[in-house]
Amino acid sequence: MEIGMVGLGRMGGNMVRRLMGRDHRCIVYDRSPEAVKELAAAGAAPAASLEAFVAAFTTKPRVIWVMVPSGDPTKETIRAIGELADRGDIVVDGGNTNWRAAMVDAEHLAGRGIRYLDAGTSGGVWGLQEGYCLMVGGDDASYAHCLPLLKDLAPADGGLVHTGPAGSGHFVKMVHNGVEYGLMQAYAEGFELMKRLPEFPNLDLPAIAECWRSGSVVRSWLLDLLADGLHKNPELKGVAPYVDDTGEGRWTVETAIEAAVPLPVISMALYDRFRSRMQESFGDKMLAVMRNEFGGHAMKTEGPASKP
Amino acid sequence: MEIGMVGLGRMGGNMVRRLMGRDHRCIVYDRSPEAVKELAAAGAAPAASLEAFVAAFTTKPRVIWVMVPSGDPTKETIRAIGELADRGDIVVDGGNTNWRAAMVDAEHLAGRGIRYLDAGTSGGVWGLQEGYCLMVGGDDASYAHCLPLLKDLAPADGGLVHTGPAGSGHFVKMVHNGVEYGLMQAYAEGFELMKRLPEFPNLDLPAIAECWRSGSVVRSWLLDLLADGLHKNPELKGVAPYVDDTGEGRWTVETAIEAAVPLPVISMALYDRFRSRMQESFGDKMLAVMRNEFGGHAMKTEGPASKP
Repeated sequence: MEIGMVGLGRMGGNMVRRLMGRDHRCIVYDRSPEAVKELAAAGAAPAASLEAFVAAFTTKPRVIWVMVPSGDPTKETIRAIGELADRGDIVVDGGNTNWRAAMVDAEHLAGRGIRYLDAGTSGGVWGLQEGYCLMVGGDDASYAHCLPLLKDLAPADGGLVHTGPAGSGHFVKMVHNGVEYGLMQAYAEGFELMKRLPEFPNLDLPAIAECWRSGSVVRSWLLDLLADGLHKNPELKGVAPYVDDTGEGRWTVETAIEAAVPLPVISMALYDRFRSRMQESFGDKMLAVMRNEFGGHAMKTEGPASKP
Repeated sequence: MEIGMVGLGRMGGNMVRRLMGRDHRCIVYDRSPEAVKELAAAGAAPAASLEAFVAAFTTKPRVIWVMVPSGDPTKETIRAIGELADRGDIVVDGGNTNWRAAMVDAEHLAGRGIRYLDAGTSGGVWGLQEGYCLMVGGDDASYAHCLPLLKDLAPADGGLVHTGPAGSGHFVKMVHNGVEYGLMQAYAEGFELMKRLPEFPNLDLPAIAECWRSGSVVRSWLLDLLADGLHKNPELKGVAPYVDDTGEGRWTVETAIEAAVPLPVISMALYDRFRSRMQESFGDKMLAVMRNEFGGHAMKTEGPASKP
């Protein structure tokens, strides 16, 4: 069937490629003309503006997939599409939009008679080949209309769920990412301990990760990636111990706090990322000062020798 | 080749079955005559006592695999074998022995000229079919001698690593289990939040778990099991929210504390299990009392209506 993609980055571009490989007609638009040109060369119908993009559809209702960075870029894109699309058209937000923002977007579009699906998307750079895991919120009729596209984006063996009303897709994807934080941190801590235990200073961590991939209780896709990463670079040379986040872990913890649901592990995994970004901790200085004040315990002073 | 198995429970019994299916001669002993009889019927050479077991070997050095509960049962079994075995024989401890205790066992046997391997074993009830993930500590020659057995116990595609000296196998297996605690808790928290969020009260958790199995970043063997469990019993009816532990999580945290390595997520996962076993928390009562004392905040009183 026909689909338009707004946003041709790593995710949007690969999704267009996957859909074209399964005989869907793809109309593409991106603020970057180069991105549009590249996908046009691969067979997509290019558009030079959002107006031209909307005009390029040959079937209705239009299915317009938005795959731009979350936050303001997504909000502004959806608002702009809301001005151009017709009643009955379907806007699918496949980005990492906050689920509460998604409910606002859905309501905004509904006020113009435009339908909305929020498609939480997991799979990263592997999705082109293996398919994307899709968690989709929105009404039944819109979901059913888009099903041929959703099924072809998803892996052959599943990886597609209709989660409920608008917002629920991004909510479930947010929780997915929160779980991901916890899983990643659990592996990271295990390898930290194996790296640092003085009694066994020469453990072959790449071999251990590889071993765990087969038959163990902790085998997983993340472990596959981790084993590959350790195999390529066993000492992780050149990698800074700095862990970024794109917001979904924060939202998971914030949502849980509002609902009074304890998430100790996911919260700790989030805090570890914050901690990883501190060159020096003021709180740690405070602790050192307090120990000095009440117990006369020695304080280290800053300088080249202060961190072993 | 020839191997003797002491301990024919769920793990030991299935390992004998897997080895016999790959043409190894298995001598079996267990305190329970029924367990011995059952495996004899399946083709193993039965022994009615540990003395008879040791005498039943036709080749030397003997390879004696100990698969009994960790702690005193393992220690006593290894001590008893130490009295009966000959110099050069190899004792393999496949249980969940503490890695420091394993180092003591190794030293004890070494004093009698008996060799020792510690084979941390993961795979549970699935190991018979899929193979056991084995993390093996001990000297190179003993490892090499047992390699045909280890390879046939392990999955066809790997799942076997020689971790280093005696004790390192159980250490790596302990860390594996610590990681497992963290992974399990991360999933549990995600599903708790999805179950409790008031905005989406009807999420189809079995369908979401199933969806995540394909193409998502959080796919794993534990998620496969979890999806199966939710599919069979979506509301987890009849399951008490009580989580036991067999010690490896505690040892992981204890080891990390000795080595001053922070394991926030693994520690939290362990604490959640402790918390799950408290019918009522004295600490929570203390908190309620303090809030009442300093702020006049109402306290709930015990009784049928106090817990919603």
